[in-house]
Amino acid sequence: MMRVSGENLHRHAQALFPICRSITGEGLRRTLAYIAERIPLGLQEIPSGEKVLDWEIPPEWNVAGAYVARLSGERVVDFADNNLHLVQYSLPMDRVVPREELKSHLHSLPDQPDLVPYRTSYYKPDWGFCVAHSTLARLTDEAYRVVIDSRLAPGSLTLGECLLEGESRDEVLISTHCCHPSLANDNLSAIAVAIEMARALQERRRRFTYRFLFMPGTIGAIAWLARNRERVHRIRHGLVLSCLGDGAPPSYKMSRRGDAPIDRYARHALSRRGQESRVRPFSPYGYDERQYCSPGFDLPVGALMRSPNGTFPEYHTSADNLDFIRPEALADSYALLDEIVDMIERDRIYVSRSPYGEPQLGRRGLYGDGEGYDWMSMMWTLNLADGRHSVLDMAERSGKPFASIAAAAAAAARAGLLAAAE
Amino acid sequence: MMRVSGENLHRHAQALFPICRSITGEGLRRTLAYIAERIPLGLQEIPSGEKVLDWEIPPEWNVAGAYVARLSGERVVDFADNNLHLVQYSLPMDRVVPREELKSHLHSLPDQPDLVPYRTSYYKPDWGFCVAHSTLARLTDEAYRVVIDSRLAPGSLTLGECLLEGESRDEVLISTHCCHPSLANDNLSAIAVAIEMARALQERRRRFTYRFLFMPGTIGAIAWLARNRERVHRIRHGLVLSCLGDGAPPSYKMSRRGDAPIDRYARHALSRRGQESRVRPFSPYGYDERQYCSPGFDLPVGALMRSPNGTFPEYHTSADNLDFIRPEALADSYALLDEIVDMIERDRIYVSRSPYGEPQLGRRGLYGDGEGYDWMSMMWTLNLADGRHSVLDMAERSGKPFASIAAAAAAAARAGLLAAAE
Amino acid sequence: MMRVSGENLHRHAQALFPICRSITGEGLRRTLAYIAERIPLGLQEIPSGEKVLDWEIPPEWNVAGAYVARLSGERVVDFADNNLHLVQYSLPMDRVVPREELKSHLHSLPDQPDLVPYRTSYYKPDWGFCVAHSTLARLTDEAYRVVIDSRLAPGSLTLGECLLEGESRDEVLISTHCCHPSLANDNLSAIAVAIEMARALQERRRRFTYRFLFMPGTIGAIAWLARNRERVHRIRHGLVLSCLGDGAPPSYKMSRRGDAPIDRYARHALSRRGQESRVRPFSPYGYDERQYCSPGFDLPVGALMRSPNGTFPEYHTSADNLDFIRPEALADSYALLDEIVDMIERDRIYVSRSPYGEPQLGRRGLYGDGEGYDWMSMMWTLNLADGRHSVLDMAERSGKPFASIAAAAAAAARAGLLAAAE
Repeated sequence: MMRVSGENLHRHAQALFPICRSITGEGLRRTLAYIAERIPLGLQEIPSGEKVLDWEIPPEWNVAGAYVARLSGERVVDFADNNLHLVQYSLPMDRVVPREELKSHLHSLPDQPDLVPYRTSYYKPDWGFCVAHSTLARLTDEAYRVVIDSRLAPGSLTLGECLLEGESRDEVLISTHCCHPSLANDNLSAIAVAIEMARALQERRRRFTYRFLFMPGTIGAIAWLARNRERVHRIRHGLVLSCLGDGAPPSYKMSRRGDAPIDRYARHALSRRGQESRVRPFSPYGYDERQYCSPGFDLPVGALMRSPNGTFPEYHTSADNLDFIRPEALADSYALLDEIVDMIERDRIYVSRSPYGEPQLGRRGLYGDGEGYDWMSMMWTLNLADGRHSVLDMAERSGKPFASIAAAAAAAARAGLLAAAE
Repeated sequence: MMRVSGENLHRHAQALFPICRSITGEGLRRTLAYIAERIPLGLQEIPSGEKVLDWEIPPEWNVAGAYVARLSGERVVDFADNNLHLVQYSLPMDRVVPREELKSHLHSLPDQPDLVPYRTSYYKPDWGFCVAHSTLARLTDEAYRVVIDSRLAPGSLTLGECLLEGESRDEVLISTHCCHPSLANDNLSAIAVAIEMARALQERRRRFTYRFLFMPGTIGAIAWLARNRERVHRIRHGLVLSCLGDGAPPSYKMSRRGDAPIDRYARHALSRRGQESRVRPFSPYGYDERQYCSPGFDLPVGALMRSPNGTFPEYHTSADNLDFIRPEALADSYALLDEIVDMIERDRIYVSRSPYGEPQLGRRGLYGDGEGYDWMSMMWTLNLADGRHSVLDMAERSGKPFASIAAAAAAAARAGLLAAAE
Repeated sequence: MMRVSGENLHRHAQALFPICRSITGEGLRRTLAYIAERIPLGLQEIPSGEKVLDWEIPPEWNVAGAYVARLSGERVVDFADNNLHLVQYSLPMDRVVPREELKSHLHSLPDQPDLVPYRTSYYKPDWGFCVAHSTLARLTDEAYRVVIDSRLAPGSLTLGECLLEGESRDEVLISTHCCHPSLANDNLSAIAVAIEMARALQERRRRFTYRFLFMPGTIGAIAWLARNRERVHRIRHGLVLSCLGDGAPPSYKMSRRGDAPIDRYARHALSRRGQESRVRPFSPYGYDERQYCSPGFDLPVGALMRSPNGTFPEYHTSADNLDFIRPEALADSYALLDEIVDMIERDRIYVSRSPYGEPQLGRRGLYGDGEGYDWMSMMWTLNLADGRHSVLDMAERSGKPFASIAAAAAAAARAGLLAAAE
């Protein structure tokens, strides 16, 4: 398949980085608009107050500006400098606040004194600012003026959905959260990879139907699941994408089932790269796999990341910026996803039409030189084509790459030795 | 639950140590009488000659005294000094015996020359004495007078049974052998722990019915099984207790099934203590688990010990005395048994009433601080409450302690998020 | 069972070594005639051109002599010196050949310059000679006379089959290829072991019917399978024998199924010798297990070897000679095969007639001294005789040798404690 350049992927992150996204609001809409310019994207607005599973869509939050200023007017913390400075869903205000009260609303990282943390208060009415810990020492005035020009009011939550129909109505789900403000790895990296994968899939023959979801984490996934409860049984394979741009090797978190085909595809791909130890068991914490893998749904959805959430020092801080994500890492993440998609598309059951004794390969020219498979891959393929082994099963049992078995099976099918099972 | 002091447990051993028990007789009856003063104990007398499974109840054996004396009258071996000196079930006699004949009836331990071994001859009519190996060298006279004031005659074998009824007729069996004379670890240690556990269980709400058996090893268990063949199917979990007072860490021998819940409870408890390597596979040798796990019964009964039988140098010698067993080891064994009983009582299947997506914990205050569980235990509990996972399954999959999952499940059930399955 | 001396086995190899065998022809017939003088052997001739599964029986090849000579008449390569010198199935010819054309038909081993390789061209019409690489440098003349006095013409392929009927029509298959010319380990070693095993089996009571096949590799097995398609379902256990004389420890290649009884017998035998690591997974390359384990047949047939094919430097060279195979290795291979046959014959399910509690062994004298089993083997046998454990299952679970469990089971059956299940 097509390779995508890391620079190309990084440019999406550059374009989207300045926008202040949240779980609702104009920043989220602008992000989805950017995506919609590149791939066919359907948008849904879900009104505040709508019941979605055990939850309720919150009011919409928008912010025009926010700062903390000395009474002299000098701004000491300003949302205009970095949208992480404002705790998300902070209530509007404009008043003079005594220093001690202010401090109880300031969040910082004593162990990483130069970084600004990322904080939210979606469901508890509150306000606050996030600052570098080093800033705190400089706040010696008796009182400060705090201005938050935000609006928290009934509105809606926006979902973006790109559906690429395939030969089958069975679906592959690719889900990315889009609610974080200026954080590059978490999750512009994954948005960039998803955009390009959707583009590439538009151009190829698709056995499966692909559904890309771009939406806020947790509440977005819950809203989508609430509205698509009758449809989720069509999802055969799914991946939550996040943190795909940092320098660590890729990792995979298994679905709750643990033995779904997607789990085996990802494991195979990582083990071929010598990174099988980066396959982690399911845990009910992380990103939206939590929702897809809740017990009522229990979908075959795993999570593809490089550094897992919470395991890198830049996580949820101002250090998760455009320098932190690397073009070569983005390109490598894309290539891995592409490899997994290729397995999803090409895995199938083959049945031998000549199962008694070995077929004579010599007279058929099936020794494989230069055809993407080697002779032993052909031998394994013919031996295991009993209607009980998929291409992946053959690859796992033989120790051969999936691609080599798939190529051998295709060649043997062309020679009339195998038939693809329905 | 209540803690029991090691000194308290040790006192039971002290009280019972001097009694000369055997598989029948007054010593056994006195031992059961001591227990009956402390817990409700039903007694059965099974007459000599009764057929029990493949066996037959032997004659009853009682002994008033026994010694080997020089012809001058000086006693060189005396039952009054240590009841191990007499081979159990020795036939009565009073005659002068040439030295060589005597020596063929003396048992000693050349590698442990100061210790007196413990020997029996229940089913082969014989007589003998057990002595320190160092004693043998001093027996230089031509002949000795051997007096055994024993009585081997039709009588009965005594079984003690403590039944504590619970909400369910499903039973938990706790079985201890009571046939050894003055040996402290084997098995006064286990008798002491069983007495206190029965006492504690009397005071608590019991989901299960508990049946404590105090009886002679092998023939006692066989007799009980013979008389309760129609009832054993009610036994859901069982433990044979023995050797619970020595200084080694606790160990567990699996039931024949190997995957019974009791096996998993014990493994979980030992692995939480870092002692999973002390879990041993079933083997058809040991104590009465041999009978409970014979193929016709195949009951879910494992064996709890500290040092396994036969693996410590004091085993079946005069060194297995009141100094060998330690109060702190007895208390630790009790605590482990208590933990396993707690798992038996609290393990159950929960089903989520909000299985689609994550329930919103914040508005319900289910983050767990100070409630005996942590937040991740709650997340795992809600995620796995699909009607196919027990509390133990959840603990094993999550790596969380059983108690933490049980507490989270109870809290979630109180909040209406889970229902206990029938 | 009877032991067979290594010298005796080696003598078969000595007698057969000089013969130039191929997949058809008189050398193969002489080899089968030698075998037929020792065991009852049925012979079949399958005519050239007959369709067998996906293949066709090739023309018959015979060779009277072949050489490369200087134009002076001096022979520089001569089939009379070593039948490996001629590529098998070389077409007849007698002409003067320029040096460069000759060289394109010479095969040598640059890394093993003193050895003559073994080459064939069964299905591609061609000619060639195999020489020591050191010989090549001496071929400096402009042209050579090449004489191949061979005949490639319609004839037949010969199969040898030794059937020893047993109490059951269920079969054990022992298959050895006989197509290689003067190569001792591959496969005269296996032919020798198979001859002696067939002889020994003639003399003993046989629960199973034994079928020994002596025939050319690949095409022979394919021909036999083609003619016996309706009969192969009777094969309960099978072994392909090859390379049984070299100094390496024995090895076993599992059947395609991987968990067939034959796989477990061989694993048990090798693990008792501390050589479990010599058990290798199935792979669709090797000897005739490839055909027996093709997906349409999928028979429980593994392969017994010492050094696996292709893993020793002497493989398919003139160094695989009578010195390379050792009498003691041949005897050890025979003993291992004998042990496996013994397991095949003695493995069965036993059911306890006294399953409730332990049977009392003392009164029955079943403690095992000198009866080929020890007391714990008896305890395990009685405990596991529940109708779900075979003798092998018992041996694996207990860690006891198969022979010890089999002896205990036989003793318990004689005492009326066990019954063999049908």
